Amino acid sequence: MAKTVGIVGGMGPLATIDLFRKIVESTPATTDQDHLHIIIDNYPQIPPRVEAILERGESPLPKLVESVCLLERAGVDFIVIACNTAHYWFTDLQKAIRVPVYNMVSCAASYIAERSEELSGPVLLLATLATIRTNLYQDAFAACGLGLQLPEPQEQEVLDKAVREIKSGELAQNPYLAEIRLMLDKHATEGTVAVLAGCTEVPLLFPYLGNTLKRFDATAILAEKVVKEATAE
Amino acid sequence: MAKTVGIVGGMGPLATIDLFRKIVESTPATTDQDHLHIIIDNYPQIPPRVEAILERGESPLPKLVESVCLLERAGVDFIVIACNTAHYWFTDLQKAIRVPVYNMVSCAASYIAERSEELSGPVLLLATLATIRTNLYQDAFAACGLGLQLPEPQEQEVLDKAVREIKSGELAQNPYLAEIRLMLDKHATEGTVAVLAGCTEVPLLFPYLGNTLKRFDATAILAEKVVKEATAE
Repeated sequence: MAKTVGIVGGMGPLATIDLFRKIVESTPATTDQDHLHIIIDNYPQIPPRVEAILERGESPLPKLVESVCLLERAGVDFIVIACNTAHYWFTDLQKAIRVPVYNMVSCAASYIAERSEELSGPVLLLATLATIRTNLYQDAFAACGLGLQLPEPQEQEVLDKAVREIKSGELAQNPYLAEIRLMLDKHATEGTVAVLAGCTEVPLLFPYLGNTLKRFDATAILAEKVVKEATAE
Repeated sequence: MAKTVGIVGGMGPLATIDLFRKIVESTPATTDQDHLHIIIDNYPQIPPRVEAILERGESPLPKLVESVCLLERAGVDFIVIACNTAHYWFTDLQKAIRVPVYNMVSCAASYIAERSEELSGPVLLLATLATIRTNLYQDAFAACGLGLQLPEPQEQEVLDKAVREIKSGELAQNPYLAEIRLMLDKHATEGTVAVLAGCTEVPLLFPYLGNTLKRFDATAILAEKVVKEATAE
């Protein structure tokens, strides 16, 4: 019998919908009953992760713990967290419960490491400044023996602004689309071969970027992992 | 403080994602924290509602009760059910818990009744045969003093097949799109002024129908109700 999946979500809600949809679309199913039992705690009241890390704002940890405990009590077999930056508190969250939490950041790094022979150049990380400052992806890539390229400081500023706009619902009309397109084109001419969406808001912009760089999407990689783990014997 | 919303989902998962997305998009929000706390039990193992009604298949009631009880224990303030046909068991579900369950079928009927002066002709119900056989919408419309048009038997067959295809993921490529388009065009020439999606799968086809009939969508109406009730003082 398939396992029950728990998702800590709401960071933001559109990114949670994206993960939910990617899990449903990755599930081999022809009827409702073939799909996975998924319990989602869409809890946007979890304090902002970026501000907690960069500006010593209120810690999201107590509400994150509340959420994983709610999911564990509800009977899920494992948990995933639909926010890359929140993985800064990963160890504390895993300690708070008995069911396993699968780590999106290390899943994405291993996934790319398994395909590194196909890559003829560096991968550019598209994440929040907070995720970059905490070295989440740099450490996970180093553990897999992979290098990772980071945006220039002014490019990073644009990305962080774009993420805030996504959180207020701006996708096709996101005011930073043109600047991100230019930035990706510039990196492509300099030898970058792929981008990694290491922020769950970033893949929401992928349909509007029209660039030919290979795209890795931590959300989609996590969705595949969820389906694999939930349906494993 | 906003109320916490519970959603009984998985019937099917794409329809649950649609309701979730419509709630998020109807919420006035510029940051994550402005959004609603929503707990979703996406439980596709609930036995098929249509087969239970039409073919005396396994009753979905025990698992539906399980789901509303799970949400109540998790602390939601009210519950909605992301499946019209499942509303056949509405009274039993409401009896099983103390928190209120808002009824999508009566919400949709009241919403249309409030706008009935704008309608110069009948509304056509697009729902499963099971929903039609149980008179859920006919009774709700009669209670509001509204008439409701039903598809011809052969049209209804097409609709039920289309819904099964949606449940296996067929949207833009749904093999029944052309027949549904023809059916709507025929009803429009005969005086129908609007359609009501009274099955949570049906609005998933709306982007591909290209017809000019006014569209009422029970899922979207429920999403508005959810936001209103959750943010009421």
